[in-house]
Amino acid sequence: MALLVQKFGGTSVGSTDRIEAVAELIVRSVQAGHKVVAVVSAMAGETNRLLGLAQQIDPRASSRELDVLAATGEQVTIALLAMALIKRGYPAVSLLADQISVNTDNKFGKARILSVDKARLAAELEQGHIVVAAGFQGRDVEGNVTTLGRGGSDTSAVAIAAAINADECQIFTDVDGVYSIDPRICSGARRLPYIPFNDMLELASLGAKVLHSRSVEYAGRFKVPLRVLSTFRPDAGTLMVYEDIPMQMPIISGIACQSGVTFVQCSNLTANSLTLLMQSLARLNVEADMVQQQGTWPNQLQLSWTVADADWPQVAEELKDLAKNNLLNLERSQQNLAKLSVIGSGIKSQPELVARIFTVLEQMNIQIWLVTQAETRFSVLMPPELMESVAARLHQTLVSVEN
Amino acid sequence: MALLVQKFGGTSVGSTDRIEAVAELIVRSVQAGHKVVAVVSAMAGETNRLLGLAQQIDPRASSRELDVLAATGEQVTIALLAMALIKRGYPAVSLLADQISVNTDNKFGKARILSVDKARLAAELEQGHIVVAAGFQGRDVEGNVTTLGRGGSDTSAVAIAAAINADECQIFTDVDGVYSIDPRICSGARRLPYIPFNDMLELASLGAKVLHSRSVEYAGRFKVPLRVLSTFRPDAGTLMVYEDIPMQMPIISGIACQSGVTFVQCSNLTANSLTLLMQSLARLNVEADMVQQQGTWPNQLQLSWTVADADWPQVAEELKDLAKNNLLNLERSQQNLAKLSVIGSGIKSQPELVARIFTVLEQMNIQIWLVTQAETRFSVLMPPELMESVAARLHQTLVSVEN
Repeated sequence: MALLVQKFGGTSVGSTDRIEAVAELIVRSVQAGHKVVAVVSAMAGETNRLLGLAQQIDPRASSRELDVLAATGEQVTIALLAMALIKRGYPAVSLLADQISVNTDNKFGKARILSVDKARLAAELEQGHIVVAAGFQGRDVEGNVTTLGRGGSDTSAVAIAAAINADECQIFTDVDGVYSIDPRICSGARRLPYIPFNDMLELASLGAKVLHSRSVEYAGRFKVPLRVLSTFRPDAGTLMVYEDIPMQMPIISGIACQSGVTFVQCSNLTANSLTLLMQSLARLNVEADMVQQQGTWPNQLQLSWTVADADWPQVAEELKDLAKNNLLNLERSQQNLAKLSVIGSGIKSQPELVARIFTVLEQMNIQIWLVTQAETRFSVLMPPELMESVAARLHQTLVSVEN
Repeated sequence: MALLVQKFGGTSVGSTDRIEAVAELIVRSVQAGHKVVAVVSAMAGETNRLLGLAQQIDPRASSRELDVLAATGEQVTIALLAMALIKRGYPAVSLLADQISVNTDNKFGKARILSVDKARLAAELEQGHIVVAAGFQGRDVEGNVTTLGRGGSDTSAVAIAAAINADECQIFTDVDGVYSIDPRICSGARRLPYIPFNDMLELASLGAKVLHSRSVEYAGRFKVPLRVLSTFRPDAGTLMVYEDIPMQMPIISGIACQSGVTFVQCSNLTANSLTLLMQSLARLNVEADMVQQQGTWPNQLQLSWTVADADWPQVAEELKDLAKNNLLNLERSQQNLAKLSVIGSGIKSQPELVARIFTVLEQMNIQIWLVTQAETRFSVLMPPELMESVAARLHQTLVSVEN
């Protein structure tokens, strides 16, 4: 008997028929002797429908009120799924964020979970109930409704799993696991039975859409055993592991592609203006990636980095203000670039892998905008047109050969 | 400067355009120097859409989960209306039932409000905010979501008005006040500028759809000045008054018609079985009306009464059980009857009015199933076909002549 958290995304609960199918899946776990907390998203399309209504009223609507609006999506799903379980003779109870004290900060639209209270969850499970909890939503310290941003239900599931010390947090989705590369890009893509936590963290933050990166971070903090598997073809999926990588596990977990990246280069910064710039980005809640600093501290610094294309307009505004105050010069910016990353635990300690990557890039005559390397990933910023063929070639060279 | 609660029903907020129009209406009150708490229903059609989803999953869905589902309708409206006010430059804040502690009993689907906490409302008003509160929804003592049943937003508005001691509770609807009779039935219908509380209570419980009867009861308990007026043609509407009826006010307030009524007659009851029967009805939450008891206490009692057609199937089941245990005999039942009521404060003390009613009924050769009389109403149960022509004739005889 295990205590399972099972999370079902918008596609998995996209219609009443699919909600019935999810109920069947949960019932099979219960029949196998497990206790289940289901965490669900809004029905596919529902969040967009709601935001469309807001758009009609005000394209720049209050973020507090957008969260009040969007949180209704999950509330609808939990009620319908609980009904489907009760109809099958299984006592189920739906619970909202405030009912299980999913406490977050007050960054509306992209709030972070601070804590989840296990008392109510434990009491319901103790009574033999299946709990159906609303993903994506929380409450701040003043009791305002917050939402965690797109994909936030994954984080809800992990936070709940951590709170109740679940044996496994199962993320049911429309793919059957984590792949070494997007199968649409490369026919040689293979499903990973296991993936080390650090590699999963890199993959998630690098555009592999299978898991929300915050959920992976949160899982890591509490060592939650996290499994990705398919709602439609239940199978073992991919299990995220925290132990030292077993010998038989490959060094390269996979290759991730991300488009819509803007390159930014500034010059004439001082230590002080650098700090101001970073504070601005933090205030805008914009993530800077591939950051590289050149020049001699504390003056005449040059900084290159990337942001998502979507964030660029507000970053550009901010840079214009800083430039006006002579705090920096904007040397160059380029939108619509692609970031290709090779992920593998200990990649940095294998210099011959990095050499092979550069060989491929050179053979294919790729214009490289930026290169960054960390313990478990190697990333290249490049023009978008060739991204997929480079990815396929690297997969063939590094992943397929290796096994 | 007055403190106003303004309630807008589903038709008034039925589209984003209408929500914008409601925002304009609220803004005009604020510009006139008033403080406003708006209370809103779900957008017209939304509650039915949600219940349709539940129906697809389980036609006899869990009532707890139906409330979780239905409560989302009001949550959508408060967010959109708050956005529309903020867009106009007025600080507004949406609040859910749990955020203003709308505490109810736990009768899901038709919960009663026990209390509303004024602290949060007062704090928001103090800061100059327009409050947009969700009608229809509440929370029970365990924090479960409850709903007040159809029309419950009226009660929410009144309860909030009572809690903050509002100067007036304005119920905006698609009619411009309370009429002496449904204008579709009788062209001589006239709008009442004032209506005594007791008459309004009778009218509301007798099928005049303008106000939910619980909201009138609740208003009476706290003497909330309640005004009914039109969202589309703002005007003075009808004000409910609690003082002694001024001399110039007519004795007859109006005539109400209600169809879909079932007549029930049982015999061979004892005092004990009568109690059991009443307990059963209470457990089913079925309202018995026009109750008449004949026979000699405590044995050989006969009981006639009415219930809504919609409640009859479950009442019939219950009576079958009681009959099986020899606690009563079901003598007769008849569905699809009509109840016609004449309402006026002190009607009982005016025997010549009652005589005139009977004269009309006799002249029109009406088959009377039951007659009941109370301090402020006189009701006749009759076949449905003639209900409207009898109502028009009585209106002509009693109301039009009188003025």
